Amino acid sequence: MKKVRIGLAGLGTVGSGVMRLIRANSGVIEQKTGLQLEVSAILDLDFSGKEALIPPTCVATTSMEEFEDTEQDITVELIGGTNVARKVIEGALAAGRGVVTANKALLAEQGQELFSLANGQKLRYEAAVAGAIPVVQSLQSSLTQNNIIKIDGILNGTSNYILTRMFEERLSYEEILPEAQRLGYAEADAGFDVDGIDAAHKLALLANLAYSSYVPFASIFVQGIRDIKVIDIEMADRLGYMIKPLGIAKIVDGHIEVRVHPTMIPKSHPLSTIRLENNGVFYDTDYSGEGSLTGKGAGSLPTGSAVVADIIQLGLQNTNPLPFTTEQKYSIAEAQHIQSRFYLRVMTQDRPGVLAKISGILGDHDISLASVMQLESNTEIVPLTMVSHKANEQSMMDALMQVKKIPEISAEEVVLLHIEE
Amino acid sequence: MKKVRIGLAGLGTVGSGVMRLIRANSGVIEQKTGLQLEVSAILDLDFSGKEALIPPTCVATTSMEEFEDTEQDITVELIGGTNVARKVIEGALAAGRGVVTANKALLAEQGQELFSLANGQKLRYEAAVAGAIPVVQSLQSSLTQNNIIKIDGILNGTSNYILTRMFEERLSYEEILPEAQRLGYAEADAGFDVDGIDAAHKLALLANLAYSSYVPFASIFVQGIRDIKVIDIEMADRLGYMIKPLGIAKIVDGHIEVRVHPTMIPKSHPLSTIRLENNGVFYDTDYSGEGSLTGKGAGSLPTGSAVVADIIQLGLQNTNPLPFTTEQKYSIAEAQHIQSRFYLRVMTQDRPGVLAKISGILGDHDISLASVMQLESNTEIVPLTMVSHKANEQSMMDALMQVKKIPEISAEEVVLLHIEE
Repeated sequence: MKKVRIGLAGLGTVGSGVMRLIRANSGVIEQKTGLQLEVSAILDLDFSGKEALIPPTCVATTSMEEFEDTEQDITVELIGGTNVARKVIEGALAAGRGVVTANKALLAEQGQELFSLANGQKLRYEAAVAGAIPVVQSLQSSLTQNNIIKIDGILNGTSNYILTRMFEERLSYEEILPEAQRLGYAEADAGFDVDGIDAAHKLALLANLAYSSYVPFASIFVQGIRDIKVIDIEMADRLGYMIKPLGIAKIVDGHIEVRVHPTMIPKSHPLSTIRLENNGVFYDTDYSGEGSLTGKGAGSLPTGSAVVADIIQLGLQNTNPLPFTTEQKYSIAEAQHIQSRFYLRVMTQDRPGVLAKISGILGDHDISLASVMQLESNTEIVPLTMVSHKANEQSMMDALMQVKKIPEISAEEVVLLHIEE
Repeated sequence: MKKVRIGLAGLGTVGSGVMRLIRANSGVIEQKTGLQLEVSAILDLDFSGKEALIPPTCVATTSMEEFEDTEQDITVELIGGTNVARKVIEGALAAGRGVVTANKALLAEQGQELFSLANGQKLRYEAAVAGAIPVVQSLQSSLTQNNIIKIDGILNGTSNYILTRMFEERLSYEEILPEAQRLGYAEADAGFDVDGIDAAHKLALLANLAYSSYVPFASIFVQGIRDIKVIDIEMADRLGYMIKPLGIAKIVDGHIEVRVHPTMIPKSHPLSTIRLENNGVFYDTDYSGEGSLTGKGAGSLPTGSAVVADIIQLGLQNTNPLPFTTEQKYSIAEAQHIQSRFYLRVMTQDRPGVLAKISGILGDHDISLASVMQLESNTEIVPLTMVSHKANEQSMMDALMQVKKIPEISAEEVVLLHIEE
């Protein structure tokens, strides 16, 4: 039996999950791994209401100095943010400790410096990407013998929860968000989630592992889900599609395409079965072929569980053969490299004339339409929706700028979505 | 850079995949893991037609003695069967070598002795269960901090291929099997696959890891797919179900239920999206929650890829915290412990009278019917199908014995299927 002393920085949602899991399953963990996990120190700003989570012999402190002075084999950073969290991680690595973090924002935005300190081995972050889903572990071990061709998936539970309920109940974004917040599926400030930032942080980390190439967070194309209306859900449904919040990373012609956007996918696609707050990651490889991992992408216990899995791997001193890389092997594909089918919706007063103008603009940009649809409506402003054949993304963006200038169209309410088959 | 010398016993379908992968991706593997994989010896009965797969400096021999005398860090056993394969593994373990095998039959039936030789650490078998899907690795690392509540899935690609095509094209088992054999999705002798033996071997290995308890292969309830007719597929479809070949292992009241049988599952269940030869494993745990892994369950390259993943883990000398156990912690649930809904089809001459007799027999065994259906037919012998409410499996088996004795029924053509919601 080997004792592993853990310093836990941040006793919030995920930290509480870690404490609960270690208390409940320490017997199972000892029996299966030979490791005795002991939380020797906890750092937090305020322990009121959390007393029951603190083990008797554990140092619970609000002082960073006192926390760092305790005996720790592994420091777990669950503070979030990029300031104190970074100091905690740097201090622990400097002291030679292993570090486990769930902090996707910090790693995606400042990972270059942190991982060069960690020398790749001592910093683990399974919990930072898709909660309990072992996708980091899979890329670092089960799939290392492959070249990864594509990795994509639903990486944000809040966005998936909202789009699932919009599809299944035909409720609007504005109706669902407050309920999602009440039920704990969305933060009070949902921007990080619904605007795609959170998924882009995760995608930056996944793409780094999949392609052994540094993907600057700022280089990722990000589109959120706020603009999607029930009419878009309905149109997608009629066309045989669902709208899902996807993160996509693939190699095309020697560039990495990295994109986060709501995407129309066929209803028969396996991703369509990933409902509500669940996450799923799909990959394609040269030797293992295609595969997927699905599960709980967030929450106190699932994320806490991923943290403990990392603690165990560090405790066993297992080699992580594939650390985060700081070397940019591939450049990022710009819009002019990307081909996609598109769904376009505008709100307009005068359908026939407007359609001629729009298709003229699209034609000028080499974009041809596969279908045009309009639902019956009694209102003066009616939705006009179009689906294109495969087109160049840059051309579509350029065309869109001109479409928005058509006087009969409300420029603020134009929705453009990617379609993946 | 660390060199790993590999002895490969068996240059068949999977062995060829291993050789192709190592040749094509040795650069990727070196870059990602720091390991230089070198196949130093190959054992096979006949190398004709395989010359191109043998590296220049490699010893290719038909002699077990010569093979064992070469320098090997890791021996890969891909011979199959339980005789020579076992000798190769025992010899390698005795010589202190690591061993990688894809031999589910050997491990499931004789694992107790082999794993006690291996002391748990030096014998890896990812490729033995569900090909390229990293389910062994996940149970041994990402999920060790959990109690597993349930693990089930589609573990046999041949059976899934046949049932998928029966569902999608309404073709019969007899029509699809020869084509599946021609396309390589079924062996010439398909019995191991379609009778559930192969899936039961894999389930024995999964249940062992999931519950840290030895599951004797002979204790697994096994039912194959040969008896399923298009009429059963159609009835399932009308009731909102698909028939999928499942392996199920779960803890109920302190016993392990381990069963392999074709199962009616709702068409909305995520398992229903796993088509053709693909495999998928679904789990439920106390802290990580529910999740799934899907991918290629068989084939030269996917299975070869899983073998190489294990070679890498052994080459890195990573600890495998959760070896196969030889200790039987849980007893196996007998039929009298198991509750399920059932689908029953009989072929009969005289429907109304027969229905009264059947429902009488079922009622005597405390089994009540949820629905009875018969499709129109011009033939003299008509199918009569019933769906029960939840019932005891032993009672259902007892009732079935009596049902088969009803004179108007063809006793050889009675189909009983489990229903899972």
